[in-house]
Amino acid sequence: MTPADKPLALTLGDPAGIGPDITLLAFEARRATSIPPFVLLGDPAVLTERASVLGLAVRIEPIADIAAASSVFADALPVLPLQVARPVTARRPDPANAAIVQQSIERSVALVRSGAASAVVTNPISKATLTSAGFGFPGHTEFLAALAGREASDAVMMLVGEGLKVVPVTIHMPLKDVIGALSTERILKTLEITARDVARHFGLVRPRIAVTGLNPHAGEDGTMGREEIETIVPAIAAAQRQGLDVRGPYPADTLFHAEARKSYDVAVAMYHDQALIPVKTLAFDTGINVTLGLPFVRTSPDHGTAFALAGTGRASPRSLIEALRLADTMRRNADAAP
Amino acid sequence: MTPADKPLALTLGDPAGIGPDITLLAFEARRATSIPPFVLLGDPAVLTERASVLGLAVRIEPIADIAAASSVFADALPVLPLQVARPVTARRPDPANAAIVQQSIERSVALVRSGAASAVVTNPISKATLTSAGFGFPGHTEFLAALAGREASDAVMMLVGEGLKVVPVTIHMPLKDVIGALSTERILKTLEITARDVARHFGLVRPRIAVTGLNPHAGEDGTMGREEIETIVPAIAAAQRQGLDVRGPYPADTLFHAEARKSYDVAVAMYHDQALIPVKTLAFDTGINVTLGLPFVRTSPDHGTAFALAGTGRASPRSLIEALRLADTMRRNADAAP
Repeated sequence: MTPADKPLALTLGDPAGIGPDITLLAFEARRATSIPPFVLLGDPAVLTERASVLGLAVRIEPIADIAAASSVFADALPVLPLQVARPVTARRPDPANAAIVQQSIERSVALVRSGAASAVVTNPISKATLTSAGFGFPGHTEFLAALAGREASDAVMMLVGEGLKVVPVTIHMPLKDVIGALSTERILKTLEITARDVARHFGLVRPRIAVTGLNPHAGEDGTMGREEIETIVPAIAAAQRQGLDVRGPYPADTLFHAEARKSYDVAVAMYHDQALIPVKTLAFDTGINVTLGLPFVRTSPDHGTAFALAGTGRASPRSLIEALRLADTMRRNADAAP
Repeated sequence: MTPADKPLALTLGDPAGIGPDITLLAFEARRATSIPPFVLLGDPAVLTERASVLGLAVRIEPIADIAAASSVFADALPVLPLQVARPVTARRPDPANAAIVQQSIERSVALVRSGAASAVVTNPISKATLTSAGFGFPGHTEFLAALAGREASDAVMMLVGEGLKVVPVTIHMPLKDVIGALSTERILKTLEITARDVARHFGLVRPRIAVTGLNPHAGEDGTMGREEIETIVPAIAAAQRQGLDVRGPYPADTLFHAEARKSYDVAVAMYHDQALIPVKTLAFDTGINVTLGLPFVRTSPDHGTAFALAGTGRASPRSLIEALRLADTMRRNADAAP
């Protein structure tokens, strides 16, 4: 099997959410939108039932060996079977089915690590449902890092949309904890991983990285906050000494308009909203979540389970389609890298 | 003189910055872009000199009485004369000319308060230059509030661009001070002023106001920060009890895409970057700064003095043009209000 024949491994996500809907819709759009072959790790019955609810004539084909996925893909949605504990009802999350959600992620990672799958693409999970069933991770990213035998801090989240790539240094924490969590070491580590993996996966020799400040106007020379001077500038200087093309800190509000975006390949921001506001403002339906720092490519649609839309026909597969396409592009770039 | 005949009062801003450039360019574009008559409060010699540097054939006409401004405007740029202390060189700010910058603002406010001008539009000032000359205000907004006999907290900054209106509750302070500065009272006061003035100046009976959270995902029910529950929700509830159409708090990252923007007339955000990132990402060249809460209309281009561009021909008048047009629209709406 050549690398190009290997399918992407797509996880089930929460089966009561829109994961099954958008998987079916993406499969239907595979030719029109040039989606590479993928295989779903999940319960074929859930897909068949959801296709029926949505009135979609998608043939679901359980396969025993992932090697069959790419040839099946032309005519049917290949599924490596896992079984739900209880029948799934769209819009009704059920902690009894937390196990299949986890298994789907675990098997996908195992397949990509063994070389049988080319990359992992994940459907949305519900933290609340998983946590109530004993899942011990804040989210996908940390779980994937653990499965890969990495520290949680090795996994770096990057949002991609409308040509913009943004990495937040801190992510899911209260704003009051952000300042304490930012350190020169943490920013530098984020810059190093970002520089290495954006180069490798996006075909760039030396990506241009723009770094935001933390404060309004990037602190205005220390008159509106000193974290830029004390924490961020030293990290940028250290990255530059390593030969990385890192600049800043820049005021965050003027870094994301069309003209500014031409001046860098990826922006590194200090906290969640600073990074996610621009990308979701520009690319709400097409944003993609990418995890850098793992020993494999992982992408994900940049939205949640959207339980209220499951089974209604109103879920959009656009972000998943973009995630599948980008995972393939990133894997090909990495394969072609020296 | 009917209200429609009254000109807008346009301040000089820092004469070494792009204020003179964009004033001349806006005047040249007055017919093509339907700019209402305005009068500049400044030194005619600065304008004449800058027009010469830029190769613009704009006739500058000093007038003794503002009543002449609107009829002059068809053929010449009317200027109510003030005199610089030292000759101005583009790109070289000079604290000796701080006085004319302040006088221009003071006279503009006096003209609008006396009823001779319809609204105030301000060109960009340099805080550093003014501060070195003893100016005791953090910026335009606070100075205008003082001139109007109001508290600084009565003046509410609103950014407008690409159909988006956003008000930050806190503005120019280090991020670490934001949480301490946010209180239910302060948020409520901002909501009240925003609701009243957006209704009055934008012709809306009961503006729909969307409020952001402070934390990622608006705190996710208290698991990622409690300021939403303890501070923001009570302010929203109090505003609703007053009959205001206020909703939230919403996650800031998903509040600014095209579809979300249709659901409200104005968004109220908690801090500088949260408010300014979306509007400057969408409307970098055309964003406008509006001050609500004053007894007169004031708008401003949403950019700085851009000293490096002064006299080069590379400054864009688009934001000033939008500011002039919006000031006129806001004043007409207020005149038409019951």
